[in-house]
Amino acid sequence: MTINGDLLIGATVQHGTASEFRAIDPSTGRELLPAFGAANLNDVSRACALAQQAFDTYRDTSLEQRAEFLEQIAQNILDLGPVLIERAMQESGLPQARLEGERGRAVGQLRLFAKVVRDGRWLGTALDSALPERTPPRPDLRLRKIGLGPVVVFGASNFPLAFSVAGGDTASALAGGCPVVVKAHGAHPGTSELVGRAVQAAVASSGLPEGVFSMLHGDGRTVGQALVTHPAIKAVGFTGSRQGGMALVRAAAQRAEPIPVYAEMSSINPMFMLPDALAQGAGKIGSGFVDSLTLGSGQFCTNPGLVIAVEGNALNKFRDAAATALQGKTGTTMLTPGIHAAFNDGVEKLGKAAGVTLLARGQNGTSASAGQAALFMTDAANFLANPALEDEIFGAASLIVSCSDIGQFSQIAEHLDGQLTATMFLTENDRDAALALLPVLERKAGRILINGFPTGVEVSHAMVHGGPFPATSDSRSTSVGAGAIDRFLRPVSYQDLPAYLLPAALQDDNPLGLWRVRDGELAQA
Amino acid sequence: MTINGDLLIGATVQHGTASEFRAIDPSTGRELLPAFGAANLNDVSRACALAQQAFDTYRDTSLEQRAEFLEQIAQNILDLGPVLIERAMQESGLPQARLEGERGRAVGQLRLFAKVVRDGRWLGTALDSALPERTPPRPDLRLRKIGLGPVVVFGASNFPLAFSVAGGDTASALAGGCPVVVKAHGAHPGTSELVGRAVQAAVASSGLPEGVFSMLHGDGRTVGQALVTHPAIKAVGFTGSRQGGMALVRAAAQRAEPIPVYAEMSSINPMFMLPDALAQGAGKIGSGFVDSLTLGSGQFCTNPGLVIAVEGNALNKFRDAAATALQGKTGTTMLTPGIHAAFNDGVEKLGKAAGVTLLARGQNGTSASAGQAALFMTDAANFLANPALEDEIFGAASLIVSCSDIGQFSQIAEHLDGQLTATMFLTENDRDAALALLPVLERKAGRILINGFPTGVEVSHAMVHGGPFPATSDSRSTSVGAGAIDRFLRPVSYQDLPAYLLPAALQDDNPLGLWRVRDGELAQA
Repeated sequence: MTINGDLLIGATVQHGTASEFRAIDPSTGRELLPAFGAANLNDVSRACALAQQAFDTYRDTSLEQRAEFLEQIAQNILDLGPVLIERAMQESGLPQARLEGERGRAVGQLRLFAKVVRDGRWLGTALDSALPERTPPRPDLRLRKIGLGPVVVFGASNFPLAFSVAGGDTASALAGGCPVVVKAHGAHPGTSELVGRAVQAAVASSGLPEGVFSMLHGDGRTVGQALVTHPAIKAVGFTGSRQGGMALVRAAAQRAEPIPVYAEMSSINPMFMLPDALAQGAGKIGSGFVDSLTLGSGQFCTNPGLVIAVEGNALNKFRDAAATALQGKTGTTMLTPGIHAAFNDGVEKLGKAAGVTLLARGQNGTSASAGQAALFMTDAANFLANPALEDEIFGAASLIVSCSDIGQFSQIAEHLDGQLTATMFLTENDRDAALALLPVLERKAGRILINGFPTGVEVSHAMVHGGPFPATSDSRSTSVGAGAIDRFLRPVSYQDLPAYLLPAALQDDNPLGLWRVRDGELAQA
Repeated sequence: MTINGDLLIGATVQHGTASEFRAIDPSTGRELLPAFGAANLNDVSRACALAQQAFDTYRDTSLEQRAEFLEQIAQNILDLGPVLIERAMQESGLPQARLEGERGRAVGQLRLFAKVVRDGRWLGTALDSALPERTPPRPDLRLRKIGLGPVVVFGASNFPLAFSVAGGDTASALAGGCPVVVKAHGAHPGTSELVGRAVQAAVASSGLPEGVFSMLHGDGRTVGQALVTHPAIKAVGFTGSRQGGMALVRAAAQRAEPIPVYAEMSSINPMFMLPDALAQGAGKIGSGFVDSLTLGSGQFCTNPGLVIAVEGNALNKFRDAAATALQGKTGTTMLTPGIHAAFNDGVEKLGKAAGVTLLARGQNGTSASAGQAALFMTDAANFLANPALEDEIFGAASLIVSCSDIGQFSQIAEHLDGQLTATMFLTENDRDAALALLPVLERKAGRILINGFPTGVEVSHAMVHGGPFPATSDSRSTSVGAGAIDRFLRPVSYQDLPAYLLPAALQDDNPLGLWRVRDGELAQA
């Protein structure tokens, strides 16, 4: 399949005329072919109008039809073969094995949502029987959830397959019955076009209305804002910077009809090293930490950007082990020259901050955009006094905070902004301190880890990839895992409907075999 | 129990010093004793700080403890006896039977949430087993929901018991483990104090931290805004006007940390009269409609403010029956002189609107704030051309829209803003038209009724009292019924926690006997 630089609007393919741009290979800084055409406002309107037109038909598909559609997308992505991986490598600088793994993740995610759709628990069905003899009589009431309407998804730079055109946001919105308009990320437009065509083909072969999926190129300030403020759009999924996310949140809040924005933005993922755990394993934890920190040039939302520990021999040992390990890491290509430059700026700024010491740098790489890892240290008093030390540096940079005693752990935890993850390293001897810290971490983070590193994000039922602001703009949800579908749903109650009007999910004989809350009790019968 | 005009801040009782005001008996326009003292910003800070301090302890209560606390509040409200009903009658102008019924509703609501808490389905527990042999290994992941944090609840004028100090928002927030700070409604401060003391006493006798509940007097622009923008507050529940609700939505969105606002605001609750239904029952439906319209002076969020029907004999008969019935209705006291004045303004404005005809007025009542019912008529073309005709008039006023053919039904439905309810009157002969209209109504309303009137709102599991903007500020939720608890929760995932750190809900042996999703399958074992 060739890449033509086109917009995908419903079933059509056309070249955008608003402006032209090319992808850049971050390892060389050179432009790649072909030229991509950006969408104009008319393209935005057409994509949104088609999505609106498709909504009622699409959300009326059976669970089985919708699940098969998601599986077809997965298959079409696999069928793209090596061309997808090759293009993604060129555009993202990520290595082959990582991208093959990420393709597996994207495909697995689509298949998970196919299962979620078939299970139908997302429908949240409840039935309250009529009580005609009661005063006043109780009507027959039945509830199910339906999709919110057309959803705009912004592709993320750091997961060109798993959180982009057919990534988690798109999969969960489609699973919920919502048509999707993707704003492709400018860093991997060719990868986006290939995946977009795979989705477009699945829409056609599944006999669905063309407006179920569109994909536009263009920048966030023009095309992105136009999409978010289009009246047909009812929700937004975004993964990226705090600045970019908040621009969308503000735009959505100022619409005549405000809509929800699920922006996954900023997190430094604190790791609290409890004393006995550090005393037992400082060296091993230190080198493991650096492996997590430098994985994928540190370009994960869950990258460990903050380590909190009590000063003393164990921390010294951890620090030395981490510094030594870091010095042995050679910088790898970052996603874009811009991300590389922002990383360097962040590292420079942190190095100049009062009370902050540089502990170690990694080796510089040969690539034009190699991210040279950096490890810093400060003390708790200084950290608490300087909120800027809490700013996320996207990439392999981290700050160790030394505390004079463990009492400062809770103080630091309380001081922190919302996080995607919070980690404790502990042994059973740290039990009391862990029990004291846990409630604070629950208030601060979407996921709490023990004796592990936060960079792995499982796609499953019990995953939460979310958390209090500014980790996300809406802590009530997760953007990874089965629960992500709930973001795009709203409940509708049906009172005294005759059988011929009732959706299948709510019919008396439960033809879909759903778990339903019947008069307050959960049952599948 | 005497009413002293006090603020309830945690366990303390004190007279507010910011300003002084008295409740007004709307049936006479006269002030009632005693004087109430409004809160100052220091009072707001103290209440919010206490709520914050109470949060971790309160959310850590067992399901049984929390359920018993809710039941204790219910019992304490009942134990207030006739003094509560008498004061509520004086302050609201509502009749005794209605207020006794509403007390039953408030108490029933607290007891429903006690059951919801005990059932524990709101925890949304999910467990994914570790797969240590997989590459990469899968960690042990367990998810439960926890409360968002302290919640501000605004008492609603039109339900001084069921949607005020210990109403649906308070009950569902407390059920979810969130401390509550109530901004009492200025129209029924004495009723609020009585109920507030009942809650305060339940907090004390249940051995809970005092900050679980506070109640402040003061107006929305000062005390209300200060509460919504206080950093300790994590969510807001509100029922009232669109203007009032949107002021809170905007304030919450502009915080350094934006928080969710659940504002239930504006709905005109369209009723579509399908042709055969109208032909069969025009007279009966017409008089039933007027009973629903004038119930409680029309002061329900679900009051039927719009009727859509095809012109012709059946509509004429409906219109005449409704007009005759309306002329026989004597106006009853509205909630406040201000609401009465706003109703009169709205009726006057609608009467002067181009293309709108007054069909009938009810009788004026003897009370100073009697709401004189009003029924208007226009045609579809005029309705579609004038968005102002869609503005809610809070009170017993409704507009009939005559269509030239049934094809205009979908056009009008598409044109409408979001609604709490949408109704179809139909017979089986109207089946095709109903099937065509239903998907549009699903997109527009939180609850769809057949052959009934929307004013009754059952408190149960399958109820949705919510809907797309501007019916509410957040269509993903309901403010009435078991699902209301979901508004105040967020998911937390626990990765590889040792047993001694795991909350009971997530322990291996399922000590709470919860329904849990275990490796993707729902089970109680």
